[in-house]
Amino acid sequence: MLGLMQDFPLTIEAILRRSERIFSSKTITTQTVTGQERITFAALAIRARQVGAVLDSLGVSADGRVGSFGWNTANHIALYFGVPCTGRVLHTLNIRLFPEQLAYTVTHAEDEAVFVDRSLLPLFAQYLPQLSTVKHVIVFDDGSPAPLPDDPRVLRWEDVVGDQADFTGRVRDENTAAAICYTTGTTGNPKGVLYSHRSTYLHSLILQAPATFALSEVDTALPVVPMFHAMAWGLPYACVMAGANLAMPGPGMTPAALLDVMERERVTITAGVPTIWMGMLPLLEGRELPHLRRVICGGSAVPKSLSEAWRTTIGLPITQAWGMTELSPLGTVCTLRSELADLSEDEKADVRSTAGLPPMGVEMRIIDPETREELPWDNEATGELETRGPWIARQYYRTDEPGEQFSADGWLRTGDVAAISGLGYMRLVNRTKDLVKSGGEWISSVDLENEIMGHPAVAEAAVIALPHPRWMERPFACVVLKQGESLSKDELLSFLAERVERWGLPDDVAFLDEIPKTSVGKFSKKTLREKFADRQLPD
Amino acid sequence: MLGLMQDFPLTIEAILRRSERIFSSKTITTQTVTGQERITFAALAIRARQVGAVLDSLGVSADGRVGSFGWNTANHIALYFGVPCTGRVLHTLNIRLFPEQLAYTVTHAEDEAVFVDRSLLPLFAQYLPQLSTVKHVIVFDDGSPAPLPDDPRVLRWEDVVGDQADFTGRVRDENTAAAICYTTGTTGNPKGVLYSHRSTYLHSLILQAPATFALSEVDTALPVVPMFHAMAWGLPYACVMAGANLAMPGPGMTPAALLDVMERERVTITAGVPTIWMGMLPLLEGRELPHLRRVICGGSAVPKSLSEAWRTTIGLPITQAWGMTELSPLGTVCTLRSELADLSEDEKADVRSTAGLPPMGVEMRIIDPETREELPWDNEATGELETRGPWIARQYYRTDEPGEQFSADGWLRTGDVAAISGLGYMRLVNRTKDLVKSGGEWISSVDLENEIMGHPAVAEAAVIALPHPRWMERPFACVVLKQGESLSKDELLSFLAERVERWGLPDDVAFLDEIPKTSVGKFSKKTLREKFADRQLPD
Repeated sequence: MLGLMQDFPLTIEAILRRSERIFSSKTITTQTVTGQERITFAALAIRARQVGAVLDSLGVSADGRVGSFGWNTANHIALYFGVPCTGRVLHTLNIRLFPEQLAYTVTHAEDEAVFVDRSLLPLFAQYLPQLSTVKHVIVFDDGSPAPLPDDPRVLRWEDVVGDQADFTGRVRDENTAAAICYTTGTTGNPKGVLYSHRSTYLHSLILQAPATFALSEVDTALPVVPMFHAMAWGLPYACVMAGANLAMPGPGMTPAALLDVMERERVTITAGVPTIWMGMLPLLEGRELPHLRRVICGGSAVPKSLSEAWRTTIGLPITQAWGMTELSPLGTVCTLRSELADLSEDEKADVRSTAGLPPMGVEMRIIDPETREELPWDNEATGELETRGPWIARQYYRTDEPGEQFSADGWLRTGDVAAISGLGYMRLVNRTKDLVKSGGEWISSVDLENEIMGHPAVAEAAVIALPHPRWMERPFACVVLKQGESLSKDELLSFLAERVERWGLPDDVAFLDEIPKTSVGKFSKKTLREKFADRQLPD
Repeated sequence: MLGLMQDFPLTIEAILRRSERIFSSKTITTQTVTGQERITFAALAIRARQVGAVLDSLGVSADGRVGSFGWNTANHIALYFGVPCTGRVLHTLNIRLFPEQLAYTVTHAEDEAVFVDRSLLPLFAQYLPQLSTVKHVIVFDDGSPAPLPDDPRVLRWEDVVGDQADFTGRVRDENTAAAICYTTGTTGNPKGVLYSHRSTYLHSLILQAPATFALSEVDTALPVVPMFHAMAWGLPYACVMAGANLAMPGPGMTPAALLDVMERERVTITAGVPTIWMGMLPLLEGRELPHLRRVICGGSAVPKSLSEAWRTTIGLPITQAWGMTELSPLGTVCTLRSELADLSEDEKADVRSTAGLPPMGVEMRIIDPETREELPWDNEATGELETRGPWIARQYYRTDEPGEQFSADGWLRTGDVAAISGLGYMRLVNRTKDLVKSGGEWISSVDLENEIMGHPAVAEAAVIALPHPRWMERPFACVVLKQGESLSKDELLSFLAERVERWGLPDDVAFLDEIPKTSVGKFSKKTLREKFADRQLPD
C-alpha cells in the first residue's frame, strides 16, 4: 500500500524558490579582480534565470551539458542553479587539470557551451581549439583586461544576457541529472560522477544538521574549496537553501586575501584543503575572527598538530571532513560527541584527527578484502571502507557496466582502508593502493606522515613505498621543512623512534622544497614515485 | 537524462539501522505506573524487531493496519518502528476520542491488531466489543493492575514476544505507507492521513535544522504531545535519527510530574500544547532547568503573555510551531532570524507570537478566496493559507477523489486564513472552517450545533469559540428558542451531556431572539464573535 503524500519532487529549483521567497535579502559577496560585487539572493535568482534564458536562446539541447571554467563567484553559483533548473547538466571544469585531461572531460561529457571567467581566458584559450563539442563560450566579465580569443564561438555575457527563463516545473523527475563532476582520484582517465536533483537536494539538506556544518541563516560561509571540486563540498547549494550569506573569494586565493575576506565579511564557516589552513596559520595572530565557528578541512588527512595549532592560536580547532567526488562529496564530519566531553584536550585532538562520523544518509561498513566479510566497529579491525546512500554514485557516466568499484550489492567500494570506533568515528588507515607492504606486514603511510608532521620543524610529509631487496617494500619519506627550520635525517629518525615501531620507521628521508600536488591540491604520490623510481634505499 | 546515483530508498528502517549503529548507547527513559524504565537505542531496535516478529507470527497481513492505544513510552516508539519496518501501517489511536469515533477510525482503517498499555485497558475495554476488524489485542505491561478483559483476542506481550523479525529490505519503495493518523480537525467523520516512509524520513531530517528544532545527539527530548497526535510532531523518529535521548512521560502528564522528568533527565527540548505550558508556569520558580533550550508549543496559538512569562521566569521564551495532521505535522516554526536581533524584547515577543517560518520542504502561499489569486507577503494581505511539500497529504485515506481541501494544482488548502511577512513569518488570522480548539483538541461547532438543535425547544443554534485562560478556546452556544418554548441553560446542558463528551459541552449559553445572518442567509459568526468579544466564560 502506498502513502497518500504529495508527489513533490526534490529539485534544485525548490531550493532556489525557497531562497527567493524567504531569504531574498541574504547576500553573496564576490572578490573580483578589481574590487567587490555584492548581490542579494533575489538577484541571484534573476541571474540564474538569465543563465537559463541564454542557454535556451543559444539552442543548447534540453539535457545538454554546460561547462563552467571559473573561480568561486556569484556568477558560478548562478550557473549551479541556472543550468540544472532548465533540465541541463552543469559540468564544473577543473581549471588545474592538464590540457589533455581537460579536453578529455569536455569531450567525454559532450559539453555544448562553457561559461568562463574573463581572468581565466588566457588559460582557457589554450584548451579551446581542442574542444570540438563546444559551440558557445560565454565570458563573464570579472574586471580582468584579458583579451577575448579570436574564435567565433566566444560571446560576452553582457551581449547575450536578457530574458529570464521560467523554470517552473521544467524538472519533474527528481532523479534527473543535475551536474557532472570528473574525479581524478582513480587511475586511468578522469571518470564522471553524474549527480541528480534528488542527491543534490538531500546532500544540501544534511549540511544543516548540527553534526555536520549546522548551516543556518545566521551564517556567512566562505567556500575556499574550488567550485569545480565535488560541487564545492555542498556549500553553494546548502547555503542558498539555509539562507546563509556567501563570501566568494574569486581569484584571490592567498591565505592573506582569504583572511581579509573572513574578517570583513564576518565569516562563520569556511571549508578547504589542509594546505590552505597550514598557510594561514602563521597569519592568524592578531586577526579579528570572533564570528568564526567552524573551519572544515577535507581532501587530505588533517595532521593533529595543525588542528591543535589552530586551537591554541584562535581557540578553534579544525573540523575534519572526509568525502569523495563519488559521495557528492560528504562522507563523514568529525564533530565531537557529547560522550567525549570529559576527555583531555589531547584525547579530543586524537578524536579530531579521525575522519569523523557519517551523517544521516551515509552508511558505512568495513570489509575484509579476502573473505568479503564485514568487520567489527572496534577501532582496531581494518578493512576496505564501503558506503551507500542517496547521494552516492552507482556508476560512472558513459560506462556500460558499473565496474569493480561498484560492487554488486549496492555499496560503493571507496578504495580506502579504515577502522571504525564503537561510536562510529571512522579512521582512514590508508588507500588500498597506498600501503607499504614490508615483509608481509602493512605499514600505513598515512600514520607515518602524521607522525612526521608532528615534528615542529616539518611543514609537509609524504611517504611512499620503494622496492627493497629483502622486505619487498619499505617506506621512504619526502619531507618539506618550515621556513627557517633545519632538521637532519638522523634527528627526524630519533624523533620518530619514540613514536613508531622500529620496523615502521622510514628507511630513508628526502628533504624537498615542496611536495608535488595534483590538480586538486592533493599530494601527488604518483609524481613522487616517478621521481624516486631509481632511488636505492640504504642497506 | 537521469543521474547515476544509488537507488537508495528513504525508509524508516534506514533511521533504525543508523541509530543502532551510531547511537546504540543513547537511551529512552519511560515513566511507568510503578517507576521508571530505561532502555538503550540498541534495545529499542531489538524491541522493534520483536514487534515485527509478533505481527508476523500472528499472521497480520503484509500491509495490514496495526493500532496503538498507548501513552508516550519506549514501547510506543518500538511500535513506531516495528510496524512500518515490516511493511505494515501504524495507526495511532486517539485515546480521547468518543467511542463511536474511535470505533469508526479502527473500522475504517481495518486495524487487524491493536497494542494497548495495560493502564489504558479499562478505557479500551469499553470500545473492544465494537472493534470487529481487530483480531488481536496485545497488552504491554506498564505496572498497572488493571484486569485483562475476558476476550479471546487479548494477549499479553510477555506471552507472545520471542523472535526478532529481519527488516532488511522489506520496504523497498520509499512511497510505501508507514502510518495513518486520523484528523478530527474537519467536519464530519475523522479522516485518515496516510504517511509514507519517504515523508516520515524527510520530516524527521528537517528537525535537525537550526531553524526548526536543531536536534542532535547532545539533546534529551521530552515529547509531551501525545503520540497519537500527528506522529507526536516528529520527535520520536527525529530523535532516534539524530541520536537524541528521549524522556517519555508515560501516564504521568501533570505539570509537576513533567517538570520532575525535565529536571531529572536534563531535558533540553520539549513539545506540547499551550495548556501544558500554562499549567507549568506557576511551578517553574526554583526548578533546575539549565539544560532546557527549546520549548516547542503548537496545537493552538501561543498567547504572547504566556511566552513572555516563561522568558521572564526562566529566561527562555516559548517557541511557537504550527502544523496540521495533514502536514506530518510540521508547517512552521517561529525561530528569530538574525535580521531581528536588534529588536526590543517586546518587538521580539510580537514576532514570537506568529506561527513562524516554513522549513525547507514546506512551501506556503496565501490566496484570495474570491479570485484565487496569490496575495503578497507584506504582513497585511490576508488569504487562505495553502501549502505543498513532500510531507503534505494529497488525499485522505479511502476517498475516491482528493476532495475540496486538495485543490487541483497540488496545494493543500489548510482552511486557515493568514498573512505572511516579507521575511516569511506566517501569522494565522482566522479559520475558514468553524472549529473550537480546546486544549489542543478540536471541537466541531457544526456537530455541537446539530446536537443543540436536536432539542425540541430549539429553533436555531450557532456555536463560536471564546478565549479561555486555560484551554485557549472553549465553545459558547448562541441559541434561539422556538416560539412559545422555554429552556434554561442547565436543562440544555443536561440534554447535551447524554450526547456529547463532557469536554465538548459549551461553557456557556446565550439565548437570543435571532441568530444574525449573512447576505446569503448563513449564520454570521463574525457578527456573533464581535457581539460577544468581551464575554467572560464562567470558571
